Amino acid sequence: MSAIQKNVEAASEAYSSTFTKGHLVLPPAKKYLVLTCMDARIDPASAFGIELGDAHVIRNAGASAVDALRSIVISEQLLGTQEIVLVKHTGCGMLTFTNEDAYGIVEKNLGSEASAELNKLKLDFLPFPELEQAVKEDVKFLQESKLVPDSVTVSGWIYAVETGKTKRVV
Amino acid sequence: MSAIQKNVEAASEAYSSTFTKGHLVLPPAKKYLVLTCMDARIDPASAFGIELGDAHVIRNAGASAVDALRSIVISEQLLGTQEIVLVKHTGCGMLTFTNEDAYGIVEKNLGSEASAELNKLKLDFLPFPELEQAVKEDVKFLQESKLVPDSVTVSGWIYAVETGKTKRVV
Repeated sequence: MSAIQKNVEAASEAYSSTFTKGHLVLPPAKKYLVLTCMDARIDPASAFGIELGDAHVIRNAGASAVDALRSIVISEQLLGTQEIVLVKHTGCGMLTFTNEDAYGIVEKNLGSEASAELNKLKLDFLPFPELEQAVKEDVKFLQESKLVPDSVTVSGWIYAVETGKTKRVV
Repeated sequence: MSAIQKNVEAASEAYSSTFTKGHLVLPPAKKYLVLTCMDARIDPASAFGIELGDAHVIRNAGASAVDALRSIVISEQLLGTQEIVLVKHTGCGMLTFTNEDAYGIVEKNLGSEASAELNKLKLDFLPFPELEQAVKEDVKFLQESKLVPDSVTVSGWIYAVETGKTKRVV
């Protein structure tokens, strides 16, 4: 067992020994979802004030709304979510490369079979060159999507990894 | 401003006022990623023992490895991740419907334009009928993917929302 796996087991032992929330039900109690980045420097529960059971939390590279659409539709159509809080952040890795760069790195590191797989999947890494603009575009994408009804409120925010502060953009 | 937006602002004010982790860098310090479900009843940091800055956290409906592939490739190829901890959970919404059900619900709730959009995107909601089998299949998918090198360790786990306990499956 790896050190990381041992850490999961130890944390779980501690967490479950004082756990008192086994009664919570499947749909989020406060009917909202937070979409943010996978970045290691973000703790959504603390930074954005999410109590256990209150909200879906979707995380992917860059907090991409396009990438999250499957999960968002499930959240609002099957589990009652009525509001989306989208949070990108300063210092995001998605600001630092292009699709061409990523395809080149995969080919160099993993070889031609991996490269062929990327091409077959037509994988778009969805990087973005400017942060605030990317927040606005993702909010617009959700507001204009036929799969997100107008009754769902969407807001866009930026979390600063340097200060721990979250500010609304749109 | 909605009550949920006000809550984000209040939480951010409190969190940033005692924030001391502004020095953390982009790549995850412990070089691993946790992939888990968006379910509101999961707090990955506490339940799985993730310290701020240590690991990428990817979350989507059902903790789908297929859906997370873009983020996983970015994490291991661009940001140095060498281990994947995949955690699905008991009581998951993905056990409760089929793609056909979801397409029917979208058409009924949102109408023919939304339905046409789903068909155009060929959106696969990636539900699964059996939990432990789904963990095993997702781990196998990652182990066999050309985009995840053999040097990356992959383990699969189940979190019990009733007890707060995480157990390894594979």
